[in-house]
Amino acid sequence: MMRKNLNIALIGTGFMGRMHSNAYRQANTFFTSDHAACTKVVCARDAGKGREFADRWGWQETETDWRRLLDRKDIDLIDICVPNMLHRDIAIGALQAGKMVATEKPLALNAQQGKEMVEAAAKSQKKTMIWFNQRRFPPVTLAKQMIDGGALGRVFHYRATYLQDWTISADAPLGGSTFWRLDAKEAGSGVTGDLLAHTLDIAMWLNGPVVELSALTRTFIKERQRQDDPATMAKVEIDDASQCMVRFANGSIGTFEATRYARGRKNANCFEINGELGSFCFDAETPHELRFYNHKDDKQARGWKTISVWDSNQPYMDHWWVPGMGTGYEHTFAHAAADFLADLGDGKKRVPDFADGQKTQIVCDTILASARKREWMETGLA
Amino acid sequence: MMRKNLNIALIGTGFMGRMHSNAYRQANTFFTSDHAACTKVVCARDAGKGREFADRWGWQETETDWRRLLDRKDIDLIDICVPNMLHRDIAIGALQAGKMVATEKPLALNAQQGKEMVEAAAKSQKKTMIWFNQRRFPPVTLAKQMIDGGALGRVFHYRATYLQDWTISADAPLGGSTFWRLDAKEAGSGVTGDLLAHTLDIAMWLNGPVVELSALTRTFIKERQRQDDPATMAKVEIDDASQCMVRFANGSIGTFEATRYARGRKNANCFEINGELGSFCFDAETPHELRFYNHKDDKQARGWKTISVWDSNQPYMDHWWVPGMGTGYEHTFAHAAADFLADLGDGKKRVPDFADGQKTQIVCDTILASARKREWMETGLA
Amino acid sequence: MMRKNLNIALIGTGFMGRMHSNAYRQANTFFTSDHAACTKVVCARDAGKGREFADRWGWQETETDWRRLLDRKDIDLIDICVPNMLHRDIAIGALQAGKMVATEKPLALNAQQGKEMVEAAAKSQKKTMIWFNQRRFPPVTLAKQMIDGGALGRVFHYRATYLQDWTISADAPLGGSTFWRLDAKEAGSGVTGDLLAHTLDIAMWLNGPVVELSALTRTFIKERQRQDDPATMAKVEIDDASQCMVRFANGSIGTFEATRYARGRKNANCFEINGELGSFCFDAETPHELRFYNHKDDKQARGWKTISVWDSNQPYMDHWWVPGMGTGYEHTFAHAAADFLADLGDGKKRVPDFADGQKTQIVCDTILASARKREWMETGLA
Amino acid sequence: MMRKNLNIALIGTGFMGRMHSNAYRQANTFFTSDHAACTKVVCARDAGKGREFADRWGWQETETDWRRLLDRKDIDLIDICVPNMLHRDIAIGALQAGKMVATEKPLALNAQQGKEMVEAAAKSQKKTMIWFNQRRFPPVTLAKQMIDGGALGRVFHYRATYLQDWTISADAPLGGSTFWRLDAKEAGSGVTGDLLAHTLDIAMWLNGPVVELSALTRTFIKERQRQDDPATMAKVEIDDASQCMVRFANGSIGTFEATRYARGRKNANCFEINGELGSFCFDAETPHELRFYNHKDDKQARGWKTISVWDSNQPYMDHWWVPGMGTGYEHTFAHAAADFLADLGDGKKRVPDFADGQKTQIVCDTILASARKREWMETGLA
Repeated sequence: MMRKNLNIALIGTGFMGRMHSNAYRQANTFFTSDHAACTKVVCARDAGKGREFADRWGWQETETDWRRLLDRKDIDLIDICVPNMLHRDIAIGALQAGKMVATEKPLALNAQQGKEMVEAAAKSQKKTMIWFNQRRFPPVTLAKQMIDGGALGRVFHYRATYLQDWTISADAPLGGSTFWRLDAKEAGSGVTGDLLAHTLDIAMWLNGPVVELSALTRTFIKERQRQDDPATMAKVEIDDASQCMVRFANGSIGTFEATRYARGRKNANCFEINGELGSFCFDAETPHELRFYNHKDDKQARGWKTISVWDSNQPYMDHWWVPGMGTGYEHTFAHAAADFLADLGDGKKRVPDFADGQKTQIVCDTILASARKREWMETGLA
Repeated sequence: MMRKNLNIALIGTGFMGRMHSNAYRQANTFFTSDHAACTKVVCARDAGKGREFADRWGWQETETDWRRLLDRKDIDLIDICVPNMLHRDIAIGALQAGKMVATEKPLALNAQQGKEMVEAAAKSQKKTMIWFNQRRFPPVTLAKQMIDGGALGRVFHYRATYLQDWTISADAPLGGSTFWRLDAKEAGSGVTGDLLAHTLDIAMWLNGPVVELSALTRTFIKERQRQDDPATMAKVEIDDASQCMVRFANGSIGTFEATRYARGRKNANCFEINGELGSFCFDAETPHELRFYNHKDDKQARGWKTISVWDSNQPYMDHWWVPGMGTGYEHTFAHAAADFLADLGDGKKRVPDFADGQKTQIVCDTILASARKREWMETGLA
Repeated sequence: MMRKNLNIALIGTGFMGRMHSNAYRQANTFFTSDHAACTKVVCARDAGKGREFADRWGWQETETDWRRLLDRKDIDLIDICVPNMLHRDIAIGALQAGKMVATEKPLALNAQQGKEMVEAAAKSQKKTMIWFNQRRFPPVTLAKQMIDGGALGRVFHYRATYLQDWTISADAPLGGSTFWRLDAKEAGSGVTGDLLAHTLDIAMWLNGPVVELSALTRTFIKERQRQDDPATMAKVEIDDASQCMVRFANGSIGTFEATRYARGRKNANCFEINGELGSFCFDAETPHELRFYNHKDDKQARGWKTISVWDSNQPYMDHWWVPGMGTGYEHTFAHAAADFLADLGDGKKRVPDFADGQKTQIVCDTILASARKREWMETGLA
Repeated sequence: MMRKNLNIALIGTGFMGRMHSNAYRQANTFFTSDHAACTKVVCARDAGKGREFADRWGWQETETDWRRLLDRKDIDLIDICVPNMLHRDIAIGALQAGKMVATEKPLALNAQQGKEMVEAAAKSQKKTMIWFNQRRFPPVTLAKQMIDGGALGRVFHYRATYLQDWTISADAPLGGSTFWRLDAKEAGSGVTGDLLAHTLDIAMWLNGPVVELSALTRTFIKERQRQDDPATMAKVEIDDASQCMVRFANGSIGTFEATRYARGRKNANCFEINGELGSFCFDAETPHELRFYNHKDDKQARGWKTISVWDSNQPYMDHWWVPGMGTGYEHTFAHAAADFLADLGDGKKRVPDFADGQKTQIVCDTILASARKREWMETGLA
């Protein structure tokens, strides 16, 4: 195997930093393409933390200031795993420095920032990716293939939820390595950008653009301690829950909901799509299963089929183990990384780029605006 | 057993006429109360059809004109199983004639009619019932008891759907014994009144009044043949699908959706309610099961529990068979009938009456208005 | 409807007496055939109990001595719902008196008695039935139809369990209206005859005769109070649990297990059958569902399908309600009753008769003998 | 992190070779202990294949003759991933050379070989491990902890199956990298050693020793092409299916079944254990879920709970991601590797050793003997 190296600089060593590190390693081992992911530099503000992370995950070097990465000639890809407030500056800086850029979702704090990023990407002509990893649950990709193959006919309905329960406690602080997601300044929005972005990305991938929506958001716990200043209570300005009703361009209608207050739900990114000829359901909590109702089945024996997606003829599954052994959340990142590497080899576009991320960002922004104004709003997508 | 007879006149011999007939018989056999349901007269416009129905279901007499029933001294209860357009006139006529009245849901064509019915009921001082049978799935009643017992704590979310797929075919006609539900003149609304009424009734029973909402409705098939005039196409004026986002008086938020275009769903009246301490799920397609997540469980062993509601210590179940044998859709009607008979005995109020039905009617009307005006609207309930 | 009456005398007013009464009523109402079930006489040793039962269930007369029923010219069918120790004498008496006979399972205390009953039936030329109601769960009947249609190809495996948990408590007495099942004198055997008989009947209906087996039985609680003499402890002589491995005539092999000590299982009569081309699963605790794996499905989308058996084109379902409303345990008895009535009309044989019951009895006896002798034994069936 | 290195030589580059390589890497990254797995040498007969494997999986060196590994001072652990026929010779050789040894299951071709291995281990005083990875599905380990904590009380029943379907086709050859499992000379037995060994290991871990059994085995396809000589048909001498009934030392009884002919089952290693106070179920096809019925639950709300084992307070889960993200098959090997490394640190015994493997081997041998002799046999375990 004489693969070309893709030299990567990872910025951020939190949950997503670990996930991406794991993904690059798995992509190299389980997938074969002309390019290998070379885990060159990891960047963390805290030098000690960075070194520990590098040791554990096999990054060759550490860095404490992301700006210094931009000048290095030996970096091909900047991978952004830091809070949303930093996405724009890093991405645009990296693009201007001639790097490819991958960023965690959501694309940015808001669609205005997203627009700047998309423009910078267009100007630089460099490849970008937004890590909408959840498209790459093999059951979701299989649904995409089957829908494209005509499994549904005319679509009537799309309904989706992304349910978690980890912020129910009033003791959860605001800010810090996990809880920056509760801080509007760092995160831009709450569950809309953090969770619903995934759900919307999958929805629009499977069912086309959302053209109009009406939304409702809620903040259930209005004040929380600041992690960096426990003596004071800070107002919580993110959305704890976000709902909307939508019209899709194809004439179907949908409902969406995300929350971190659904007791018992941990990572329930779920969708159901209903068409004339069939329906699909998925729930990320049982991540190797796709449920399918095929109206074309023999009339006597119709029903909801649970397709365990683990056969080698199903998406991504020829790269892993054997039937009976499904993949989970972590592997979706490996799929994304492998797709990126494959794109480099043949110039195709398997991965969603900044422009795709911006579409979802626009819907997220429209949700927040609609909730604020209490009225139906168009997204401008079509 | 020397029970007092409750003499019943049933109006209508369709699906619900059969259900109620079955329910009265089961209530008499499986439940014991001071009163027995006496299936006195069944009323059908077609005399032959009425006699056949009476033979099959054990009604003592037949009648072809419901107005004649009102003058009979030997009728205690008028039970209305005809299309919604007739509910008001029959109910008010019967109340004025001093009868008790039970009616199928929705209460009426609209809230204006409902208001007249509620007023007539109040004036007559006669007992009324609206057949919101689905409250009486034992798992739903068990959820009610457990919620009232504090199982949830503060409630954050309610999400519910009522999904069917029987009108996807463009060949389904408009009008006739089943398809009057597609005719706005007979039905008042489409899935909002036919399906969502059940879902809303359960929601408000479990979680209190809906105070504000924004709705979206759709008619997917715009024209259908009239059953009574197949040569002409009639415009379909009912809602094929109905969605809304709501605020409840207790501060929680919810989503609702009903449709007859969800391929593979036959009678999926489902809800999920999420509170601080736990969550419940129910799906009428698995009608003896309640799913419960109890955050108070031992931390090591939390999870979603499927409670098969068939033990004698669970609601209604001491009247049926033995553990391992659940109840289904038909038995919910028996529970409603038995509750009505029990109310007669002890003067308690187990059954929803016209005033309860009117609350749901108001929400339904608000949904249709909100969808028309494309704006948030208050229900006026509290 | 001018149906001929089938005049029935029911012997026994326990759980099965209620079930059969309910079944006759449902068969008359939901099914149409030339014959109607006429619930003529119910026989109970206790006259008061008999009258109460007759009132509740609509039996015209009561009787306290079953022998007096045999002389009555106006009885066509004797239906036996009393403990197994009485099956033979009543059945043979009734056949000799020229009656048709239906009996609850198991056929008799043992195969020797069963043989006498089969011979008496043959001699009398009268129609007999054994109430193997569980064949008539619509999912089981659908599996039968699909297997007969070639859905499985060569069969390799059959595995089945019938699991309950109601005798775990050492406080359950021996004898009496429910607990006669724990008394070997009245019941003949324990779970082998009470539960496994159902499981074996379905197995042999779907997969042909069992030709050889090795069995293991256990009695977990060795002594219990006698209900009629609480001061004394009686030795428990029935099998609390019964397992066997079997060879079928078609070359497949199977495992069977029944117990009343499986905590959390209430009526889990389950089977799985694996063939070259597909597999089926059923569990009576979700009684309207059949699971089907079809290897002939498109390779990309194979999986276990849950067929909710409630469409009018599925077995028995054109007689009940509408799709979305399944049937449960009680309806299996209605199906058996309706099949018996239909047989009377056209002379076909839809119902299992004494000879069918004897096949299962023989397997049950072989199980008990094999467990006693600790060796493989042939059943003699083929 | 200054960990001591455990220098490993891996013998075999098939499915298990890949699994173990992946496991060592994951153990190093996700777990922290004094020792790190150092992937020193991989041994493959084919040098090119060995080098490719080493490249992909990060082994430092390659070797083609396992015997040469024994003389190397820099190897601490020999890890055996070759067909069963080689286990004994390699293991004993390695132990005599003063190495620690880990081997894939089953321990050996038969219990005689196993005995020699156990003796060699005892003599060498070196640590051994048998890779019974499936104990280490977190739900299985959680069940073990809860059973040890008294969750079940007196145990009545254990029933387990290991179902697959990959050898149904008569075209599958005999011999070669996957299909050596069909060759009795290389594998010793068929599904008994390959599948049932896992199932029995879990059973005896959870429920104690099997003391007596009666078994049935079957070979469904009697002849297959030899992979290395396609022109000739070879007699298949392994068991395609294996069943047994057992008595456990604790008085409970059980059934076991393994097969590769259960259409639709891919890796269904399932068990159910029923005790006085509760029951557990597990199925490796939904590998993060444990089902639990707790009779001590509030009477009104008993039911089967699905515990998704992904919280940090559940076995192994503090090492992986966050709640909502379960582990699968591959991670069980990481757990085994991490346990081995942890054992090295503190001298405790977390992993099953050769003596544990021998207990399972003895039961497997007893199954094959019982099936051959058609009689009940004691295992000699207690």
